[in-house]
Amino acid sequence: MSKWEINLIGKKPKLKNPVLIEGLPGIGNVGKISADFIIDEIKAKKLYDIFSYSFPHSVFVAENNLVELPSISIYYKKLKKNDLLILSGDVQPTDEESCYEFCEKILDIAKEYKCRQILTLGGIGLHSEPKQPKVYCTGNTKNSVKDFKNGFKVNEKLFGVVGPIIGVSGLLLGLAKRRNIEAVSLLAETSAHPIHIGIKGAKEIIEIINKKYSVGINLKELSKEVELIEKDTLKRTEQLGELSKISSIKKLGGKISGDYTDYIG
Amino acid sequence: MSKWEINLIGKKPKLKNPVLIEGLPGIGNVGKISADFIIDEIKAKKLYDIFSYSFPHSVFVAENNLVELPSISIYYKKLKKNDLLILSGDVQPTDEESCYEFCEKILDIAKEYKCRQILTLGGIGLHSEPKQPKVYCTGNTKNSVKDFKNGFKVNEKLFGVVGPIIGVSGLLLGLAKRRNIEAVSLLAETSAHPIHIGIKGAKEIIEIINKKYSVGINLKELSKEVELIEKDTLKRTEQLGELSKISSIKKLGGKISGDYTDYIG
Amino acid sequence: MSKWEINLIGKKPKLKNPVLIEGLPGIGNVGKISADFIIDEIKAKKLYDIFSYSFPHSVFVAENNLVELPSISIYYKKLKKNDLLILSGDVQPTDEESCYEFCEKILDIAKEYKCRQILTLGGIGLHSEPKQPKVYCTGNTKNSVKDFKNGFKVNEKLFGVVGPIIGVSGLLLGLAKRRNIEAVSLLAETSAHPIHIGIKGAKEIIEIINKKYSVGINLKELSKEVELIEKDTLKRTEQLGELSKISSIKKLGGKISGDYTDYIG
Amino acid sequence: MSKWEINLIGKKPKLKNPVLIEGLPGIGNVGKISADFIIDEIKAKKLYDIFSYSFPHSVFVAENNLVELPSISIYYKKLKKNDLLILSGDVQPTDEESCYEFCEKILDIAKEYKCRQILTLGGIGLHSEPKQPKVYCTGNTKNSVKDFKNGFKVNEKLFGVVGPIIGVSGLLLGLAKRRNIEAVSLLAETSAHPIHIGIKGAKEIIEIINKKYSVGINLKELSKEVELIEKDTLKRTEQLGELSKISSIKKLGGKISGDYTDYIG
Repeated sequence: MSKWEINLIGKKPKLKNPVLIEGLPGIGNVGKISADFIIDEIKAKKLYDIFSYSFPHSVFVAENNLVELPSISIYYKKLKKNDLLILSGDVQPTDEESCYEFCEKILDIAKEYKCRQILTLGGIGLHSEPKQPKVYCTGNTKNSVKDFKNGFKVNEKLFGVVGPIIGVSGLLLGLAKRRNIEAVSLLAETSAHPIHIGIKGAKEIIEIINKKYSVGINLKELSKEVELIEKDTLKRTEQLGELSKISSIKKLGGKISGDYTDYIG
Repeated sequence: MSKWEINLIGKKPKLKNPVLIEGLPGIGNVGKISADFIIDEIKAKKLYDIFSYSFPHSVFVAENNLVELPSISIYYKKLKKNDLLILSGDVQPTDEESCYEFCEKILDIAKEYKCRQILTLGGIGLHSEPKQPKVYCTGNTKNSVKDFKNGFKVNEKLFGVVGPIIGVSGLLLGLAKRRNIEAVSLLAETSAHPIHIGIKGAKEIIEIINKKYSVGINLKELSKEVELIEKDTLKRTEQLGELSKISSIKKLGGKISGDYTDYIG
Repeated sequence: MSKWEINLIGKKPKLKNPVLIEGLPGIGNVGKISADFIIDEIKAKKLYDIFSYSFPHSVFVAENNLVELPSISIYYKKLKKNDLLILSGDVQPTDEESCYEFCEKILDIAKEYKCRQILTLGGIGLHSEPKQPKVYCTGNTKNSVKDFKNGFKVNEKLFGVVGPIIGVSGLLLGLAKRRNIEAVSLLAETSAHPIHIGIKGAKEIIEIINKKYSVGINLKELSKEVELIEKDTLKRTEQLGELSKISSIKKLGGKISGDYTDYIG
Repeated sequence: MSKWEINLIGKKPKLKNPVLIEGLPGIGNVGKISADFIIDEIKAKKLYDIFSYSFPHSVFVAENNLVELPSISIYYKKLKKNDLLILSGDVQPTDEESCYEFCEKILDIAKEYKCRQILTLGGIGLHSEPKQPKVYCTGNTKNSVKDFKNGFKVNEKLFGVVGPIIGVSGLLLGLAKRRNIEAVSLLAETSAHPIHIGIKGAKEIIEIINKKYSVGINLKELSKEVELIEKDTLKRTEQLGELSKISSIKKLGGKISGDYTDYIG
């Protein structure tokens, strides 16, 4: 195993200027929940598996009680109006140089498939999650952001609200600009607490993506799930995983540590 | 000295599809105590010494008051029903990339000796050690876990109980799968406190290994030791080392810092 | 993108033994504020853009609400009496070895343009910013420090006042000595608080540079800004950015995190 | 500048099986104070200067108010009965792999000069410095430790007292054993407080070295200094530096940060 392994699963599909959507773990895991939910609902097909020595040196315990190396994958789906590539995974590279290297490899793939746009997803961590989380939109060119604002309730005035966008969700935007690929980011308000599942923020983001790219997902079950959470005071990831009907939330159960004193090694 | 040095001690033995048991330091040092106890009791012979620049830049003070570089070793023993390779040591590699590299080297050796199975040992850190620590079992294939459950009181429902398995005990399982080597892990509940010696958890694990592989160890002295600990409230490693009759516990005395303000450099 | 990228913007100017002034982020951002203010006031022209994998793996949200990779740039200006090269940026390299590498590259450029002196700028972090911040001067040769003292109210007795000078502001001095380039540092007292904008300390430094190199900047607006700050109790960077009339302070608004729980990723 | 630079100063002396004494910064700086005091008293001559990218990315402010890169040096002295090589410096390498590399380079030099023994010096950090600090002795062979015990009040029972010996003082012992070089360590009790100057512990060690190698130092001034410290309650490094008559203590003044909020960058 070398430092980076990108394994193609099956044959390369012919995609028409797809949009690459990134949803890796981050604040409130808003991006990851959004990406995983969409992958499940549209039954996107796995295209690449990515392993790396720069991922955390640990294994997750999956729903089937067996262990899995941390991995990041790219899925694809040909929809009526748009083709999608979705980047989803368990981790982000652990050190800064590896994060740059990883983003460059993702951009190599985006170039290869002639992606017309990159959309990264993330959370803005506040003391507590608001009742109605706002969604901000930023990007690497004025046009790409203007394009997203159009018809959607997103706030583009991000300057001075918070500081830098850390990790893949930010770096992909900056490095994409150097390759003349337009990239935007949707960032939903959520709680900064380490094991918070930002499902309300994710719901706002999923609704925008669903409409923007005509994905065609039925969002009723997602809305019911959010109602359930608002009634309970469930914050613990594993409990939420047990109660949740949504597969992507359940899977999260084993990826995030529960009580900070419970750990294995 | 290059980054990794694996030195063969004596001649290579002929082993029949051995089981490789890993017991490096970790939570409660459950894995290390188990591995060292077994090595002592069956008088396993040292096969390899492993040194590395990726180990902590320090030396331990041994029982003979002399210093030793941190090292990891592999021992072997030909028993009636099974041959064993046991991986034991003072440390784990300090950075993530080195942990991946180290595990790959261990798997190279496992392949070389045609190991039929890898068994990693570790602890689950709780607020305090339970009176009767439970033992969980996970692995990289359904069959290997099913095989261990059979006839033993181990719990396989690990999902959602705790988060990732960090370090060699976890990574060996994940990387072994990529090489089609079956691997399981026995994880005993213990206290998460940094200088806790998880001897009760280790006792549960040793009993399972003793029976599973027909090792033939007399466990009376181990049981007496555990009784002694339950009567006292000894948690401090060095005191335990002074009182313990068990050689592997005594040796631990110099490897783990006592009072956090007592240190040398 | 390789580990270091230094991109020339336009044509190389002919400069006459310029002074290289360094003002990267640091304590109170005193050096950065000083350098950016001077760059804006004299309309210095960008000469080099520097990118690196050793910079933080994040992007900043700029005044225009779009994102930018962290970068460091070198500007130049031909004044009547002196030519200036000014090193300014958003970040410092994240690890120690990269900091050494970066400084050597800056010194390569200093050698190429036959710089006669290097001046680094920084802050001395105290519990709180004094009413009248003192400015200290140190350097890598006795003559260079003596030269700065002459006619300026700077204190050279730095020994024992504080400990090491960390980062580029210090390392450039030490590494310049090995290349026989004279280098001095101006260090202004300021508050050690992580999001403090040390504008009063910067004002003291800017006044010295303005006089020393006959830069010709009108300092009235800077003085007014400082008055405003003394009346308010503004410490939060983004609020200061909104109120400030000074462009370099506004730009800082998006580079420094506000509330420590507000972050994006 | 490459990762390691070892510069010979002047001509190589002919030394007769010298002893290499190591005294780098550590707990209470006991080793550094001892080594620097001896170097000053016997007027040892500088033999090598060592620079590295693995040293901290900062510069110190020296007694003359000018800055210096962190460095480590080797000094030598031909005495009547013994020849000495003394390793002294401002820092230790910052990361573990560099610490191993550094020790191997020191051992290369020890081999080159056919050193008969290596002696490392360090402190054992306790809550507070005892009135009469004990000195412990450990080493990499039984004989070398026995040899030191003979005629000196040193305690060899170090096992279980404290944990690992971290850094160069420990690693040199372990790596020396692999090259068949005998090595011992003298460790004096001192306070674990970060800016404590362990001069009482250093005095104990200096007395042993003075007698062991017939160094011929007059220890009166050292004793007077220790008395002075016992009367005052001086703990702050820079104050001690101002009051101290001993040059090595004064020089320490600028190497160790005073108040933790006072720092420059």
